[in-house]
Amino acid sequence: MKKINVGIVGATGYAGAELARILCQHPYVNISSVSSVSYEGKLYSDVFENFRGILDLTLENASAVIEKSDVIFASLPHGLSEPLAETCLEKGKLLIDLGADFRMYDENDYSEWYKRAYSHPEIHKYARYCLPELYRDKVKEAKIIGNPGCYPTSIALACAPALSNALVRTDNIIIDSKSGVTGAGRGLTQNSHYPDTNEAFSAYKACQHRHTPEIEQTLSDVAGTELRVTFIPHLLPVNRGIESTVYMNLNEGVTKEKVRECYQKAYAGEKFVRLIPDGCYANIKNVRMSNYCDISLHFDMRCNRLVVCSVIDNMVKGAAGQAVQNMNIYYGYPEDTALCAVPQQF
Amino acid sequence: MKKINVGIVGATGYAGAELARILCQHPYVNISSVSSVSYEGKLYSDVFENFRGILDLTLENASAVIEKSDVIFASLPHGLSEPLAETCLEKGKLLIDLGADFRMYDENDYSEWYKRAYSHPEIHKYARYCLPELYRDKVKEAKIIGNPGCYPTSIALACAPALSNALVRTDNIIIDSKSGVTGAGRGLTQNSHYPDTNEAFSAYKACQHRHTPEIEQTLSDVAGTELRVTFIPHLLPVNRGIESTVYMNLNEGVTKEKVRECYQKAYAGEKFVRLIPDGCYANIKNVRMSNYCDISLHFDMRCNRLVVCSVIDNMVKGAAGQAVQNMNIYYGYPEDTALCAVPQQF
Amino acid sequence: MKKINVGIVGATGYAGAELARILCQHPYVNISSVSSVSYEGKLYSDVFENFRGILDLTLENASAVIEKSDVIFASLPHGLSEPLAETCLEKGKLLIDLGADFRMYDENDYSEWYKRAYSHPEIHKYARYCLPELYRDKVKEAKIIGNPGCYPTSIALACAPALSNALVRTDNIIIDSKSGVTGAGRGLTQNSHYPDTNEAFSAYKACQHRHTPEIEQTLSDVAGTELRVTFIPHLLPVNRGIESTVYMNLNEGVTKEKVRECYQKAYAGEKFVRLIPDGCYANIKNVRMSNYCDISLHFDMRCNRLVVCSVIDNMVKGAAGQAVQNMNIYYGYPEDTALCAVPQQF
Amino acid sequence: MKKINVGIVGATGYAGAELARILCQHPYVNISSVSSVSYEGKLYSDVFENFRGILDLTLENASAVIEKSDVIFASLPHGLSEPLAETCLEKGKLLIDLGADFRMYDENDYSEWYKRAYSHPEIHKYARYCLPELYRDKVKEAKIIGNPGCYPTSIALACAPALSNALVRTDNIIIDSKSGVTGAGRGLTQNSHYPDTNEAFSAYKACQHRHTPEIEQTLSDVAGTELRVTFIPHLLPVNRGIESTVYMNLNEGVTKEKVRECYQKAYAGEKFVRLIPDGCYANIKNVRMSNYCDISLHFDMRCNRLVVCSVIDNMVKGAAGQAVQNMNIYYGYPEDTALCAVPQQF
Repeated sequence: MKKINVGIVGATGYAGAELARILCQHPYVNISSVSSVSYEGKLYSDVFENFRGILDLTLENASAVIEKSDVIFASLPHGLSEPLAETCLEKGKLLIDLGADFRMYDENDYSEWYKRAYSHPEIHKYARYCLPELYRDKVKEAKIIGNPGCYPTSIALACAPALSNALVRTDNIIIDSKSGVTGAGRGLTQNSHYPDTNEAFSAYKACQHRHTPEIEQTLSDVAGTELRVTFIPHLLPVNRGIESTVYMNLNEGVTKEKVRECYQKAYAGEKFVRLIPDGCYANIKNVRMSNYCDISLHFDMRCNRLVVCSVIDNMVKGAAGQAVQNMNIYYGYPEDTALCAVPQQF
Repeated sequence: MKKINVGIVGATGYAGAELARILCQHPYVNISSVSSVSYEGKLYSDVFENFRGILDLTLENASAVIEKSDVIFASLPHGLSEPLAETCLEKGKLLIDLGADFRMYDENDYSEWYKRAYSHPEIHKYARYCLPELYRDKVKEAKIIGNPGCYPTSIALACAPALSNALVRTDNIIIDSKSGVTGAGRGLTQNSHYPDTNEAFSAYKACQHRHTPEIEQTLSDVAGTELRVTFIPHLLPVNRGIESTVYMNLNEGVTKEKVRECYQKAYAGEKFVRLIPDGCYANIKNVRMSNYCDISLHFDMRCNRLVVCSVIDNMVKGAAGQAVQNMNIYYGYPEDTALCAVPQQF
Repeated sequence: MKKINVGIVGATGYAGAELARILCQHPYVNISSVSSVSYEGKLYSDVFENFRGILDLTLENASAVIEKSDVIFASLPHGLSEPLAETCLEKGKLLIDLGADFRMYDENDYSEWYKRAYSHPEIHKYARYCLPELYRDKVKEAKIIGNPGCYPTSIALACAPALSNALVRTDNIIIDSKSGVTGAGRGLTQNSHYPDTNEAFSAYKACQHRHTPEIEQTLSDVAGTELRVTFIPHLLPVNRGIESTVYMNLNEGVTKEKVRECYQKAYAGEKFVRLIPDGCYANIKNVRMSNYCDISLHFDMRCNRLVVCSVIDNMVKGAAGQAVQNMNIYYGYPEDTALCAVPQQF
Repeated sequence: MKKINVGIVGATGYAGAELARILCQHPYVNISSVSSVSYEGKLYSDVFENFRGILDLTLENASAVIEKSDVIFASLPHGLSEPLAETCLEKGKLLIDLGADFRMYDENDYSEWYKRAYSHPEIHKYARYCLPELYRDKVKEAKIIGNPGCYPTSIALACAPALSNALVRTDNIIIDSKSGVTGAGRGLTQNSHYPDTNEAFSAYKACQHRHTPEIEQTLSDVAGTELRVTFIPHLLPVNRGIESTVYMNLNEGVTKEKVRECYQKAYAGEKFVRLIPDGCYANIKNVRMSNYCDISLHFDMRCNRLVVCSVIDNMVKGAAGQAVQNMNIYYGYPEDTALCAVPQQF
């Protein structure tokens, strides 16, 4: 099989490095070029020393990446992927965007939460929001793939069967999420300075995190009705992993058995979603370094409430792994190519 | 001032060691005796080497502690404090119990969740549940002090002003708590084995944690109506600290300003409760090694919901510190004696 | 290519689980059976939930593993591998032993440090100590492979070029090593209880660690003269990784350039040993979850001293990865089969 | 007793915050003013939220601090304390400098390692290097107190009895130290970014750390002869604590008993130095949040070598605590005033 050339724009952030890590092990691709504004001209393995002897490319600029690649992965601050996408479209190259520019169906939701209008509104019709377990069909029709955000991935997979089967009310969904520090990116801030983060824990951006409209978009879509959620993210002193605990009020007459059955059916054929047995808890350590999403179901029958715990590796299923999964689907490779690593439990 | 003699039964658990740490710095007490079933006969400072040269007592048994002390602190598995309390009552000595035996108003709540009946039902009329900020008056009338649990402390302080002022509905209270690993005790389990805990995160005992009836008892009491909560605890990979994020639906017409005002009024004179300014977040690092409870208020006005974040050090305000606070009140010492340490931010 | 059947005896320790993780990704093997004394009869994926849907075998006993496998990996306390080896020899099956029973050339060294004599002295002539980068030729002649210990691996690779080229004196070698907590095993101890380990650091077993004779055996061998070392291990509050800082006094006239040249030559063809550029430091994060050993050279020319920093993942190159590397060599597979993972930097 | 006014210049670094934490609990001082270049005009408790309600001063500039204080603590990058000291001298105020400007006896050592000459050479005659356990007499004669560095404190206390009693050779001292991340300061760097530091470990500044001449100055002084050491620091993924493992070759005929006896005698009257019993190990967790230095002695009699493990809290005995200890001595307060906290074991 002829290898395809893939490039990474924004390769020196964490998601970029994670893409490189996964793609290095992909049998059908060749990493042709990597770019970075801050480190252009340096060796990739001087920036990330774990790659020494493995990926010793020199960092270039975005144009070089586009030129040398069939598929371009972009991991950039919002607003920067739109012009990139336009160029890719012109040149007939697939863009898989790990940023926020191509995730919303409605520009209003984007502009309200990201405080800017689209710079290239005309290209959005070529974009598809691709969370494979929910929207696998969209992948092949996309010219621009909007790769889901980390929190929204963990939450959409936690809620979809409950909402699409009308097991729960849609007016009282509460989401308490906790993310490892890589989720905050590789840029230096006091909040991610080791002594300020280690042995610390708090919520942040309560009710104002930019992933909120993306969460509501998917949940409304699967529920078939507009809904709103209360979403509170917290910063967890670990490197990797997101845990989302979602609270939903059961509709009258819905039993535990019914709920479990709907979740089993929904994910029966999905390799990357594992429904955890009764009495066990989804734990980030069981999905670390993998593309799995583990889901456990809990019931507060005294309050007639369903509680779903969902965990992913924010860097893999929440970013780079899911992007490679989308590429695999797009090209017709086995969906788990380069994504078969056993999770790192310890 | 003549010093009182204090003793610790169960001194080799974490709460016992924390009592010793705080009491060593208390100017009005003398630690007269410490006991432990597992380590009887050993030097305390051989069990906890941080105490070398500071508290070099030999560990005795419970009877010796009672004999030598005016006040007995007990930190024992549930069921073991009742006989101890009887002896203390007989001898006219104050028992401050950090366990669960003397927290419930209603034996049925205790027997339902702890799966045993009281062994000494007649002595419970001398016991008082003493969370000082809510029940300060109870302390002086107690002969047995039931010291609150860690989760319930963080949650009661988070919710009391909202419920006592009828700011929120009582039928939809959701509590998502996260506790440091000392909360699981010093006994060895796979779940607290370092490589299984580090870089891990999950819920546990969902909807079945034994602190639930204590939480509901206090919240019902301040609300003036029976209520139930959904309570999900999670294990946080840090040594110390509890963060509780509480979700409550605002009653109609209640404004942010009204909420803040009620909280300010409720805690105006309380040294150990700090209401954090708008836009900041209660973080366990700001209360570590201290008796403070920090509370921050957040609003999801799109969903008409109040979110309260509350943090304590589970070992101090959640256990030993609050016990000393109760002793200070009982004896008329300044309430913050031995509890003035500045929190350890890093 | 026909797959070989491999089994793991002692599969529920950390090294056993790491073997399973790596072997699951090995294209030429089939995991035929796993055993455990403590968990016999349970599902492997109920013990290690990360394996759910990946390795759902039922745990058996050691005899079943031997019966069903061509190659047996054993990860057992010392003393238990000898009888196992005898059975494997009889049945003509390869044993790769991750324990200490087959590492020493001289039974006296074993009995002095492990306080027991060989139970099956006659079988040791079929055993070979196989650290591939130093003793690759031994692998094919072995019937029992003694897989090196974690500390000795990091130290032997750090010192071999200096000693075999007579760059340093042999009478003053000082080794200060630090190991992640998985090195202490999965058994519960107070020292690996999370709150006792987290934010802690100390030496342990100073000058009496059982890896000492193995270290001295290899260093003496490459130096061509009997030597002794001072070896102090420390417990590092991370899950994985060993860092060894080795201090050696340079022989007269030996220059930095000469040292670097010898190290470069020694490891020129070795995929798994990476000599880090001048000015950089070997860091465990750059080898985590991989079979690499990174080595950096430092010079204190004021004291005429060479300092070598060496890092490995104690679970991979220090245990399971090296065992698979040995199996690959034995069977003539590419040496890096199943060992190509890019290290996990974050 | 009339309280003295103390001020902190550079109060928003970690050492500054630690000074504030300790001084808040000092019965004989009043914190009159704090300064910071970066945060001037902000509330101290907005920078460090743990101080809310405890120390709500507005940050001023250095001049204001000097004006309002009897004692000035300075925690500044090297070079900045000299002009400050001159002003303090003029105004007759005591400067306790936590930086490097007043630690060296010989300007040449300073200029060689810090790459600058003294800007105010004439004032250095008023400065004294004050490590109380070794140089208690110097404190009262000082007008400027040069407070020791963190590594040098742990190392000097580890070595002094061995060197002053001629127990060991002076030509082969090797020091392997490990420091928590607060040692690297509060300034943002990639190396202290949480995901780059957590689960990582490596040496840094091998043989070129600026504490080297300070270490050699003290060790030479107590040994009575010029000596050099090899000193390799490592970054430890914990917030607080330094562990130094020091390797020294015993002089002929020196026994274990003799060594232990000399250490006992040397520290017999020293509250803050604890000699750990045979068979135990100095562990940073037993000194955290305290002014103690714990020392354990180990012997490799096979190699005739003494190994000393020494631990301190780098922020307390290694910085702010020792500075307060010096102030207590200077003013004739009990030496342990505000320094009696029991270490935080967990």
